[in-house]
Amino acid sequence: MCSVVGIYNNQNASKLAFYSLFAMQHRGQEAAGISANYNGKIHTIKDRGLVTQIFKEEHFEILKGNMAVGHTRYSTAGDDSILDAQPVFAKYGLGEISIVHNGNLVNAKEIRDELIKRGAIFQSNMDTENLIHLIAKNYEKPTLKERIIDAVKKIKGAFSLIIMSRTKMFAIRDPFGFRPLSLGKLKSGGYIVASETCAFELVGAEFIRDIKPGEMVVFENGEIKSEMIFEPTTKQCVFEYIYFARPDSNVFGKNVYVVRKEMGRELAKELPVKADMVIPVPDSGVAAALGYSEESGIPFEMGIMRNHYVGRTFIEPTQEVRDLKVKMKLSPIMDKIKGKRLVVIDDSIVRGTTSRRIVRMLKEAGAKEVHMRIASPATIGPCYYGVDTPTKEELIASRMSVDEIKDYIEADSLAYLSIDGVVRAIKDKKENFCFACFDDNYPIL
Amino acid sequence: MCSVVGIYNNQNASKLAFYSLFAMQHRGQEAAGISANYNGKIHTIKDRGLVTQIFKEEHFEILKGNMAVGHTRYSTAGDDSILDAQPVFAKYGLGEISIVHNGNLVNAKEIRDELIKRGAIFQSNMDTENLIHLIAKNYEKPTLKERIIDAVKKIKGAFSLIIMSRTKMFAIRDPFGFRPLSLGKLKSGGYIVASETCAFELVGAEFIRDIKPGEMVVFENGEIKSEMIFEPTTKQCVFEYIYFARPDSNVFGKNVYVVRKEMGRELAKELPVKADMVIPVPDSGVAAALGYSEESGIPFEMGIMRNHYVGRTFIEPTQEVRDLKVKMKLSPIMDKIKGKRLVVIDDSIVRGTTSRRIVRMLKEAGAKEVHMRIASPATIGPCYYGVDTPTKEELIASRMSVDEIKDYIEADSLAYLSIDGVVRAIKDKKENFCFACFDDNYPIL
Amino acid sequence: MCSVVGIYNNQNASKLAFYSLFAMQHRGQEAAGISANYNGKIHTIKDRGLVTQIFKEEHFEILKGNMAVGHTRYSTAGDDSILDAQPVFAKYGLGEISIVHNGNLVNAKEIRDELIKRGAIFQSNMDTENLIHLIAKNYEKPTLKERIIDAVKKIKGAFSLIIMSRTKMFAIRDPFGFRPLSLGKLKSGGYIVASETCAFELVGAEFIRDIKPGEMVVFENGEIKSEMIFEPTTKQCVFEYIYFARPDSNVFGKNVYVVRKEMGRELAKELPVKADMVIPVPDSGVAAALGYSEESGIPFEMGIMRNHYVGRTFIEPTQEVRDLKVKMKLSPIMDKIKGKRLVVIDDSIVRGTTSRRIVRMLKEAGAKEVHMRIASPATIGPCYYGVDTPTKEELIASRMSVDEIKDYIEADSLAYLSIDGVVRAIKDKKENFCFACFDDNYPIL
Amino acid sequence: MCSVVGIYNNQNASKLAFYSLFAMQHRGQEAAGISANYNGKIHTIKDRGLVTQIFKEEHFEILKGNMAVGHTRYSTAGDDSILDAQPVFAKYGLGEISIVHNGNLVNAKEIRDELIKRGAIFQSNMDTENLIHLIAKNYEKPTLKERIIDAVKKIKGAFSLIIMSRTKMFAIRDPFGFRPLSLGKLKSGGYIVASETCAFELVGAEFIRDIKPGEMVVFENGEIKSEMIFEPTTKQCVFEYIYFARPDSNVFGKNVYVVRKEMGRELAKELPVKADMVIPVPDSGVAAALGYSEESGIPFEMGIMRNHYVGRTFIEPTQEVRDLKVKMKLSPIMDKIKGKRLVVIDDSIVRGTTSRRIVRMLKEAGAKEVHMRIASPATIGPCYYGVDTPTKEELIASRMSVDEIKDYIEADSLAYLSIDGVVRAIKDKKENFCFACFDDNYPIL
Repeated sequence: MCSVVGIYNNQNASKLAFYSLFAMQHRGQEAAGISANYNGKIHTIKDRGLVTQIFKEEHFEILKGNMAVGHTRYSTAGDDSILDAQPVFAKYGLGEISIVHNGNLVNAKEIRDELIKRGAIFQSNMDTENLIHLIAKNYEKPTLKERIIDAVKKIKGAFSLIIMSRTKMFAIRDPFGFRPLSLGKLKSGGYIVASETCAFELVGAEFIRDIKPGEMVVFENGEIKSEMIFEPTTKQCVFEYIYFARPDSNVFGKNVYVVRKEMGRELAKELPVKADMVIPVPDSGVAAALGYSEESGIPFEMGIMRNHYVGRTFIEPTQEVRDLKVKMKLSPIMDKIKGKRLVVIDDSIVRGTTSRRIVRMLKEAGAKEVHMRIASPATIGPCYYGVDTPTKEELIASRMSVDEIKDYIEADSLAYLSIDGVVRAIKDKKENFCFACFDDNYPIL
Repeated sequence: MCSVVGIYNNQNASKLAFYSLFAMQHRGQEAAGISANYNGKIHTIKDRGLVTQIFKEEHFEILKGNMAVGHTRYSTAGDDSILDAQPVFAKYGLGEISIVHNGNLVNAKEIRDELIKRGAIFQSNMDTENLIHLIAKNYEKPTLKERIIDAVKKIKGAFSLIIMSRTKMFAIRDPFGFRPLSLGKLKSGGYIVASETCAFELVGAEFIRDIKPGEMVVFENGEIKSEMIFEPTTKQCVFEYIYFARPDSNVFGKNVYVVRKEMGRELAKELPVKADMVIPVPDSGVAAALGYSEESGIPFEMGIMRNHYVGRTFIEPTQEVRDLKVKMKLSPIMDKIKGKRLVVIDDSIVRGTTSRRIVRMLKEAGAKEVHMRIASPATIGPCYYGVDTPTKEELIASRMSVDEIKDYIEADSLAYLSIDGVVRAIKDKKENFCFACFDDNYPIL
Repeated sequence: MCSVVGIYNNQNASKLAFYSLFAMQHRGQEAAGISANYNGKIHTIKDRGLVTQIFKEEHFEILKGNMAVGHTRYSTAGDDSILDAQPVFAKYGLGEISIVHNGNLVNAKEIRDELIKRGAIFQSNMDTENLIHLIAKNYEKPTLKERIIDAVKKIKGAFSLIIMSRTKMFAIRDPFGFRPLSLGKLKSGGYIVASETCAFELVGAEFIRDIKPGEMVVFENGEIKSEMIFEPTTKQCVFEYIYFARPDSNVFGKNVYVVRKEMGRELAKELPVKADMVIPVPDSGVAAALGYSEESGIPFEMGIMRNHYVGRTFIEPTQEVRDLKVKMKLSPIMDKIKGKRLVVIDDSIVRGTTSRRIVRMLKEAGAKEVHMRIASPATIGPCYYGVDTPTKEELIASRMSVDEIKDYIEADSLAYLSIDGVVRAIKDKKENFCFACFDDNYPIL
Repeated sequence: MCSVVGIYNNQNASKLAFYSLFAMQHRGQEAAGISANYNGKIHTIKDRGLVTQIFKEEHFEILKGNMAVGHTRYSTAGDDSILDAQPVFAKYGLGEISIVHNGNLVNAKEIRDELIKRGAIFQSNMDTENLIHLIAKNYEKPTLKERIIDAVKKIKGAFSLIIMSRTKMFAIRDPFGFRPLSLGKLKSGGYIVASETCAFELVGAEFIRDIKPGEMVVFENGEIKSEMIFEPTTKQCVFEYIYFARPDSNVFGKNVYVVRKEMGRELAKELPVKADMVIPVPDSGVAAALGYSEESGIPFEMGIMRNHYVGRTFIEPTQEVRDLKVKMKLSPIMDKIKGKRLVVIDDSIVRGTTSRRIVRMLKEAGAKEVHMRIASPATIGPCYYGVDTPTKEELIASRMSVDEIKDYIEADSLAYLSIDGVVRAIKDKKENFCFACFDDNYPIL
């Protein structure tokens, strides 16, 4: 999970990229960066941390120009992680280039091995470096556009890409369209391409349309041109709706909040339960819980409070303070919960440990029954298309039945939304989406 | 607005104080501190910043002992602000003492002038320093307890106090009981006194009861003794329910979330409006909006999203990014709002500028009508009992009629909950509460 | 060891105080602070750290006005150390006051106990707080000047004080004149009082004269008036010459570098040795080594280099890296040292461990003989007048003979300068100086 | 100016690299980094700042293994400077590699252009990237050693290189030997290669010999093998003696302090002047001033003190504080200087502004005459071999005669040491050294 943004033909390009990254901070808190293009020379600032921590007013003196690309990174920090921040910049045969990438390549290792065999050097662990090598080594093709097309045809997997050269910008989405990428028109002039439309609202942009699976949009001479460079076989990531995207974003043509609420409705239809109250695990379960409540008629309550001051603390807990990590973040409204039968709505279960802590916390707070309802199917497999899921072994649903999970998390009942329920909530064709982490049916490997 | 905590007779006293302050961080982010008592010697760590920023593991090597008091401070930072952090520690005639105070004294200046005339020196701007002087100068009384009683009888205003000596702890609430103060029993041994019960949940404590207005609880020899040192004339701060306290806290005998939801119900009863949707200004308007929705039958939606990554940024906005401060924090779910008549629920209106930005944002997002409903009466006067309200002039309701405010914030309609509505929501006697900021009826001046 | 500065009647008072503290940073790196006086209101900024770390340009917006006092603190950090930074500010019966103090009171505890008995409270561990209490409580005297005189007559010990009220400044030196305090005229207008004259050079001031032992200088209405408030019994600290003061300062009427060089000369006269080379322990031994070389005719070499990048590192040393702390700071010029008989000049020996490491390092580097010569007498007792010496037990010379110390530090010979040698170097009367740490003859206890 | 270090076959390899970099911190304060090799996997930590700021104890958990290379960087910070820190790490056809480089390539652009033409991408501005590409692309040669030899034969300029693969280490010096590189034996086992021998003392290593110009030393299977890969045409950088290297280092076979002192002697012989006192500009002029004094018989004095607390301050100076930057760093011992004729010894003059400030400061302090003597020839041209000199235009001696410079810096006389004087001081053959910045005679361009 990452976010990308490109700003084209706007004199405040890098600042608008900054605000866009701020709006998409939920898609990656490890690192961030912006490249801007001033008179054909590309400058890059990137570092570890949140966008508001990294960027200072003086950086925008360096990041001048009317084109910019930006990136936020979500990642397991390795020792070399500063080197793994994006944009990836390089000088190559046709000049200078800066690339941002959201997604994951399934044939990165093969390409890397092949490129290394042919003399390439790799200075990071990022798939994106492959792409620059493929572009740089393709001398036969005289234009960057041709080289990009050749390059992306060699890579396989998930890629929502923005590529900036000295004069142009390219936005590309893989033929499956795993990750979102939307196009907007800036009220102050020029265009924006971003992973999520929530960035548009903040920078004052109007949504034009999504970049299509398999499409390349070229920004050149102040204009945009579109070209289908792949035959699309749309398989959009359903987890964007379930968890990743911000509720106020429109993703794959639908508003995320609306879809999540429908998922709650479907959950209520599929898996009714007698209860006094529907409560969400905040914040990601709120919309589905509202839908569940509306459909079931069981009243909705914000029965669990989320503490937004969390941040990091390195104070070791005392023995008295059990389950501290969850309790520092979430706390029950005891007066509402005591003696009540609760339907608790969460977006998904990964390892099961957090769910168990939540159930325990609610029981300790006096809940009579806790019925856990998950607004997505059971996650049984990892994602190879850009989501940082744990290994199959760590996923509780890959090694336990629903009933066993119910016992493990100490809930009175547990149920997941079906894949068909998800499809009904999205109100789109099932074949347009990737459910691989739920049904082991990977579109490309 | 501040928070106080005292931990008595627990070997992890200072750590439990730390976690309690963490839970009460919403009551003050400027500064924090903890004093602990080890073998009759008091050590204090205090600084500017959030509790998680100030305290490091090694500090708890210094803050040893089985008694501790802590404080978080909400304040307009002056140049000397580090000196104005609490606890206030002093050596005096009977040994060492450390005090934490939530509230505000109305006769602080008179006492200070009188004390200075008698030769006292004041090294901070804190009212709390008065108290230590009064205790220290009272040589005739041989015991600290007697001196404390004499001292608090001289001060007037709001005070929820915790005082730690080398062997005892004292918890006192002023006769009006303006600020909350609750007593709990720690599962790991000993007692806790804290401004809000949300601290109890985190440290593993059971609520015993509120310290009563006018009461002093003495912790000594492992036990607690109570004494009424004032004739109570209860006037508890209604704003604790409206805005300050955390929804999961029980304050003045009621759960805050429950009261807020009832305020929403009363608002719907008093001031109905035809609309398609009830939406809260997050997070403080959520409970009232749920109550409004339940009572009115108008569907509840989380139509505005709050971005929790905000933090501080010093990047100057470009002209394109209007109303940036509000937009970086709040964003509308456009698909839900477009073409809809909205009832927007907020807890209160102070200067009116934020409300105006919210209304504009919703209109820009396509709302057909915006009916602002405030879950409290119009704030017409400042608070002298510990709330950091702006001056009378800055309060929009002190110089505009409701109709004028409606025009100023560009809403289609505006209405406030009545004082009686607040009373009905609390389900307690009106005379037990202070409504001074709404009705200019100050209990003590 | 601390430094104090006062700036009177200059529109850049606080900035000149800042630069003065910067020049006197060697007299205290723990904490620093400045109070400035703007329209009769005193503002204070103080914190832990170096002056360049503490003060930011924006602080000087707060520290406006044409009077300022400043302080740098050298101290063993306690847990409450932020509270122990100076200036000490207080509001009291005659208004506002801010005090800076270099020295140490020998009757601080008695005064404190007496004051506490009379109802005073102490919020820090600083002797300076005593003084403010004495001033504040002296109601019978209507003017600050009278009160200051009464107060300083009650305190005993070392005090070079600067006191700032809303309209005046007072500079006072105790009757023994233990610590230096000099008066200068600022070229840009007004006066400066500072612990060391090295501050004068940086801020553009001309040295007028030292404040005399027992003198009080009053700055009022743009002028200075002097008054002897004590019968002086001059006992100036000889260690200022030996170690504390900067070589470019003039202290007690003599230039420090010149005196140190003379000490080296005397050392050569008293304790000649056959050797190939004189080398100093940098930086404090340089001047004495030059004098020794000139007197003895043995060539001077900078045979030990000092690494000025030291700073703090928390990397644990490996076993291979022995004596790391000394080696990171000092390293021998091996080509010069190998096979040579060295006279090594240091200012003093405290615990003996550093001397031993230096001797070992030089022997490992191939020195044939190492003759340690100390440009001061053997330190046998602690200082009670403002120098932070270790306890008597820790002082190697309090429990070992010179011969035993020689063996301990593994030198081929060891000799100390005599007290009379010090006196000859200073070229002043012996009775004007305190040698208590060398001869156990404490002027006041 | 940079420093490099390699540690081979020692279990604390990365810690010893850290201490070595600490000792060589004077050769670069902008950035630093270490790569270590654990079980054939190379990990790298690098960042901006001083080595003590960058490295934390926990980093050495990552930097495990018994081989390590390290680098400190001196550089004009560009916007991308974090990317320009070394070591440069890459994965390539034969595995993993990490390189550190001290020097500068004169044909870097040509090689880069050629490599780019052949499809290479460059992600930094460092010459070092060239080398990795040359190695990576040389598929015909099956071993790293052969590839390294081929690669370094293509590059021209100054390079003291250390290259670490998964199993070996290579240390190479260009045929001119512009930059130093010395080999030592660690007492705790294994070998060290470092830019300066001052690192050896700190980590406990014995100097074996210098790596020869044109030599490659291979560390493999616990042993070292040497090979001459270039015909040497030795042209060692004379500025290493004049300014760069630490006095306690032995460089190009001579001790730096000894050579500097000899330069002072030669200066006295060549350019005698009648004066009362020889004083150095600290710290770099000290050794030469001692030599000048010994030769001339004019007494040496530390007449200017250097303040080592400088650090950075962002407080804007007031008008009163003229020449603040120099005065905060240097201050005169006025008592010594007043009325005296001074010979002031500095290592070199670059722009002339600092010299002018020093002369003025000494005159203001009362010096009767100031005779500036420079212990090197006049710098008339930039260095292309790794020294960060200003442009020709900025070098005062490139556009003014000695007499004009004398007038500009307001000295009573000015003289530079001749090139022959430098040679006599080094006591080596003239043709073995590069004097290009003094005589415009560049060995390679």
